[in-house]
Amino acid sequence: MDVESPQEIADLLKDHVLHPAEAADLLKDASAEQVAEVVKVLDEQQTADLVEHLDLAIQRDLVNYIPRGHMAKVIERMAHDARVDLVKELPEEVADSLLPLIARAERMDIARLASYEEGTAGSVMTTEYAVVSVDATVEAAIRELRRQAPGEQTGSEIYVIDADRKLVGSVTLRDLLLSKPEQQIRNIMKTDIVTVNATDDQEKLGEIFSKYEISTVPVVDDAGRLVGRITAADVIDVVEEEADEDIYRLGAAGQPIDYLRASILKIARQRLTWLLILVGTGLITSSLLQHYQAELTTAIALAFFLPLLSGSGGNAGSQTTAVVIRGLSTGEIQLSDVWRVVLKELAVGLMVGTVLGVFAAARALLVPGGFQNLRLGLTVGLAMTGTVTLAKALGALLPIFFQKIHLDPALMSAPFISSIVDILTIITYFTLARLIYLR
Amino acid sequence: MDVESPQEIADLLKDHVLHPAEAADLLKDASAEQVAEVVKVLDEQQTADLVEHLDLAIQRDLVNYIPRGHMAKVIERMAHDARVDLVKELPEEVADSLLPLIARAERMDIARLASYEEGTAGSVMTTEYAVVSVDATVEAAIRELRRQAPGEQTGSEIYVIDADRKLVGSVTLRDLLLSKPEQQIRNIMKTDIVTVNATDDQEKLGEIFSKYEISTVPVVDDAGRLVGRITAADVIDVVEEEADEDIYRLGAAGQPIDYLRASILKIARQRLTWLLILVGTGLITSSLLQHYQAELTTAIALAFFLPLLSGSGGNAGSQTTAVVIRGLSTGEIQLSDVWRVVLKELAVGLMVGTVLGVFAAARALLVPGGFQNLRLGLTVGLAMTGTVTLAKALGALLPIFFQKIHLDPALMSAPFISSIVDILTIITYFTLARLIYLR
Repeated sequence: MDVESPQEIADLLKDHVLHPAEAADLLKDASAEQVAEVVKVLDEQQTADLVEHLDLAIQRDLVNYIPRGHMAKVIERMAHDARVDLVKELPEEVADSLLPLIARAERMDIARLASYEEGTAGSVMTTEYAVVSVDATVEAAIRELRRQAPGEQTGSEIYVIDADRKLVGSVTLRDLLLSKPEQQIRNIMKTDIVTVNATDDQEKLGEIFSKYEISTVPVVDDAGRLVGRITAADVIDVVEEEADEDIYRLGAAGQPIDYLRASILKIARQRLTWLLILVGTGLITSSLLQHYQAELTTAIALAFFLPLLSGSGGNAGSQTTAVVIRGLSTGEIQLSDVWRVVLKELAVGLMVGTVLGVFAAARALLVPGGFQNLRLGLTVGLAMTGTVTLAKALGALLPIFFQKIHLDPALMSAPFISSIVDILTIITYFTLARLIYLR
Repeated sequence: MDVESPQEIADLLKDHVLHPAEAADLLKDASAEQVAEVVKVLDEQQTADLVEHLDLAIQRDLVNYIPRGHMAKVIERMAHDARVDLVKELPEEVADSLLPLIARAERMDIARLASYEEGTAGSVMTTEYAVVSVDATVEAAIRELRRQAPGEQTGSEIYVIDADRKLVGSVTLRDLLLSKPEQQIRNIMKTDIVTVNATDDQEKLGEIFSKYEISTVPVVDDAGRLVGRITAADVIDVVEEEADEDIYRLGAAGQPIDYLRASILKIARQRLTWLLILVGTGLITSSLLQHYQAELTTAIALAFFLPLLSGSGGNAGSQTTAVVIRGLSTGEIQLSDVWRVVLKELAVGLMVGTVLGVFAAARALLVPGGFQNLRLGLTVGLAMTGTVTLAKALGALLPIFFQKIHLDPALMSAPFISSIVDILTIITYFTLARLIYLR
């Protein structure tokens, strides 16, 4: 579909020809004012469906173009997790003027969901779910379900709670459909259900969904009471976000941002933070080399291999850091695996370092200089093996250590580890040169 | 739970106290023989549930410890996508001896699913779904659903097909439950449903699920006929896999492997492939520096800044490559955005390059040498700005170019781009030195 006028989009939405998510796509570059033109002709539910799919920044601005009373009704009809995100995004005075207009039950729901910390299971859950009492019969349960809003967003699993709202089991609509009306829910419910706690880290969710092959998981509080539900679609978003973070940090690119929309200045500022830190360590290499000026002057050939050594160390470290950061993030590597991983990387480092050392040494032999070059070859070769081994060991150790002291392991980005390895490489290289080449 | 004996695990499984996924976790380091001990006391369905959750390598070996006839029954009861994966993994002669023992309908199902290429939507879909005819009444549809195996794995969405098996809509169990028995399915079904084609790239799935906030999507063939269904749990696996690949390739670590289990030799071989390619480009830097030997000897201070320049170029490139590779993979960046992205990175590169250039130049002024050092400072500063700008432009351009010529953009790993930038940096640096510093 080509670019449409707001009027056209509104008409297509009104007639249910266009999915709200697709309408939001078409309105991707539209201003809040243009979006307001579209929603003017939609009813509250249609507006809510569209608004949910818009960028949060547009949602926020849109509030200024819609009468408060009408906006309150729209918010009431939005998905529970989407409306919490919107209310949290609004300037305080706007939220304060809107909230009193929203129905009490919805308002309390927003307050409750907003109280969960960013990054917890509670912060991504929704409070839309279907629930029946453990003491009900199948017939009573079906009657109760008809009474509960029959939104599609409640999923196919119906949670079973006791008198204290404690989650005790689950049934599916299919179970109800296939059971005799007079049977007890207690007798047909499944009791071995997977749950998550509202305060659990959202990073765990992907692992749980893929391990148990479930499409939705109930969320309970510390007392085991049902407080919400997380859908697989929410988890997909979380998994994508976590992967984005891993990749950005591995590349020392900071926090993921909306790249195509972000201003050049904003991107530059974000990148510069890390580059300045890394230049800091880079300046140490300059000082070290200045310190080794005498050796360099005596044997200029030593300089030829500086970028090769520093590059190989960086590359060897990047490989390990990528594997370890991702492994820590998906749970494949645990903190308790630290020595197993470090020893494995040391062994791998020695093996590949030896092969690369042979190549580097062979290249050094090509420098004109006769017999003396055997010593240069040995120096360069050993330095290469040392650098690669060191890079692999540090590339494994530092991210795990950071995780252990509760810092994000991805702060130990590949560039950062390369920088540290650079410093150690220069010291090793010139120490070897003094011992072997320059005697 | 601490390590359990096979007998204990079997007992817990038999009594439904232990979830098969958790049993599989406990058996993570067990041999196929030990697992065979466990399944000996389980019935076919319980065995199927456990086997599905085991590593594919263990599943494959397990086949040798279980009588063929029994194994065939187990395979019949496994989830449709899991059993296809297993059959594909078996040695041809084992598969050939097993397949004739499997019921015909299941065998055809396996053959059909196995025919979809790795990486397509068809390869991750399952053929377990519930389906009703568009011409049925609600009452007839419920009767038909009761007849279809009432497995939980069919989900809450029921697909509606016409006489040609073309997918024309969907209803939920809830819709059926809330409608009058004599109503026509045609009149209560939802028709604006999201579908994917069996040949679509699986990379798209995450985007579709998160855009439309769905928990399951029907899969159709080119003629619009229903052929399968993809669940969000499957998509979570796909999204994690794709992210793993992005991260591994960004770090030039090759294809994701089962790290903790892989032998040191296997890991070393995988890493070495890339390191040797990168050492190849690294050797070019040695030759270049040998070529510039005269300049280096005249002005040894030039050597002090080699690791700083090469490191900063690598870091600046890593940042951009991380952002662009991830953006291409999630669809945030399109091929058509190429010039927009490259220009943006050029601008960002110039800005951060200038700041870093000032720092590098200031450091160069600290080298003893009087007035002459103003020229050294200018050389180092300009080289830094050039390197960073170039690294950012190439870090954006090369992955997009690779995508354009249908190669994986992540083959342009951060280390690879750093290596290319290294070569260009040295040429720029010494050209500037000749023009400014060494006149």
